[in-house]
Amino acid sequence: MDEKRIELTPIGRVETSDGQGPFRLLIEEDYRPALQGLGSCTHAIVIWWADQSEDGDLVVELPYAPGVKSGVFANRSEARPNPIAITTTLLLNVDEESGTVDLAWIDAFDGTPVLDIKPYLPMSDRVMDAQYPEWLEGFPESMEDAAAFFSDPANVEKFS
Amino acid sequence: MDEKRIELTPIGRVETSDGQGPFRLLIEEDYRPALQGLGSCTHAIVIWWADQSEDGDLVVELPYAPGVKSGVFANRSEARPNPIAITTTLLLNVDEESGTVDLAWIDAFDGTPVLDIKPYLPMSDRVMDAQYPEWLEGFPESMEDAAAFFSDPANVEKFS
Repeated sequence: MDEKRIELTPIGRVETSDGQGPFRLLIEEDYRPALQGLGSCTHAIVIWWADQSEDGDLVVELPYAPGVKSGVFANRSEARPNPIAITTTLLLNVDEESGTVDLAWIDAFDGTPVLDIKPYLPMSDRVMDAQYPEWLEGFPESMEDAAAFFSDPANVEKFS
Repeated sequence: MDEKRIELTPIGRVETSDGQGPFRLLIEEDYRPALQGLGSCTHAIVIWWADQSEDGDLVVELPYAPGVKSGVFANRSEARPNPIAITTTLLLNVDEESGTVDLAWIDAFDGTPVLDIKPYLPMSDRVMDAQYPEWLEGFPESMEDAAAFFSDPANVEKFS
């Protein structure tokens, strides 16, 4: 094996029936003690393995910005050299005993391997003055705004 | 090999002399095209492999909150089942040809393997109403505030 390669073990998986929720992480028994205290946080960053992503080019045309080409390190496509995805989400409930973490939302398929969970910390994760490319103008300015924005199917279509 | 295990390949590494900067990512030649367009973003999330972290317990006492025990999924310790770390940072310069990405800051050692780079998108990554546990009260409310806060060595000491 290439000595540079790195191995990971899933800590659990995503449970969702149809992408419309409810959304849950089921954490394997061995790792459940690591959930202690997560319920004190309102939001978390879930790191997951996009196991259904397909190999793709390193530069793609953005579906929501026709004619704009973007390297995958400049977009959030799941088709990337290491298909690691991160989702920041509201925590609804954390149950250490059953290993269940109920989320307001996650953009992962049922059965997706979960690699890590981190608490959302404003001092590390909240950037107030982030600017982004012109093709993202008109999109929501925060996760809370996004929840309202993407409740309109026309906007979901626009960004997919 | 356990069929559940997942393999990753570093896309580059962190270059920094002493933790005080300058801070740079050097991306391997094969992956440089994926940087196209990243320079249009002000901030990025760097995903890296904490290869110097040591195995630790799933529940730890927080050094900055004596007596408070926390599962590692409720804190940002590098000693976790999969030692993947994420750092949100200001981008200073992106050069696709040389594969260099200059950052305002990253909390990783020189030589640390980099797994992924994602653009910081407010609609996905900025949470306005995140609450956090009482032992984090008094800490900065955003990444910009943190830059000022942690320029005081006494505050660095407080959080480490």
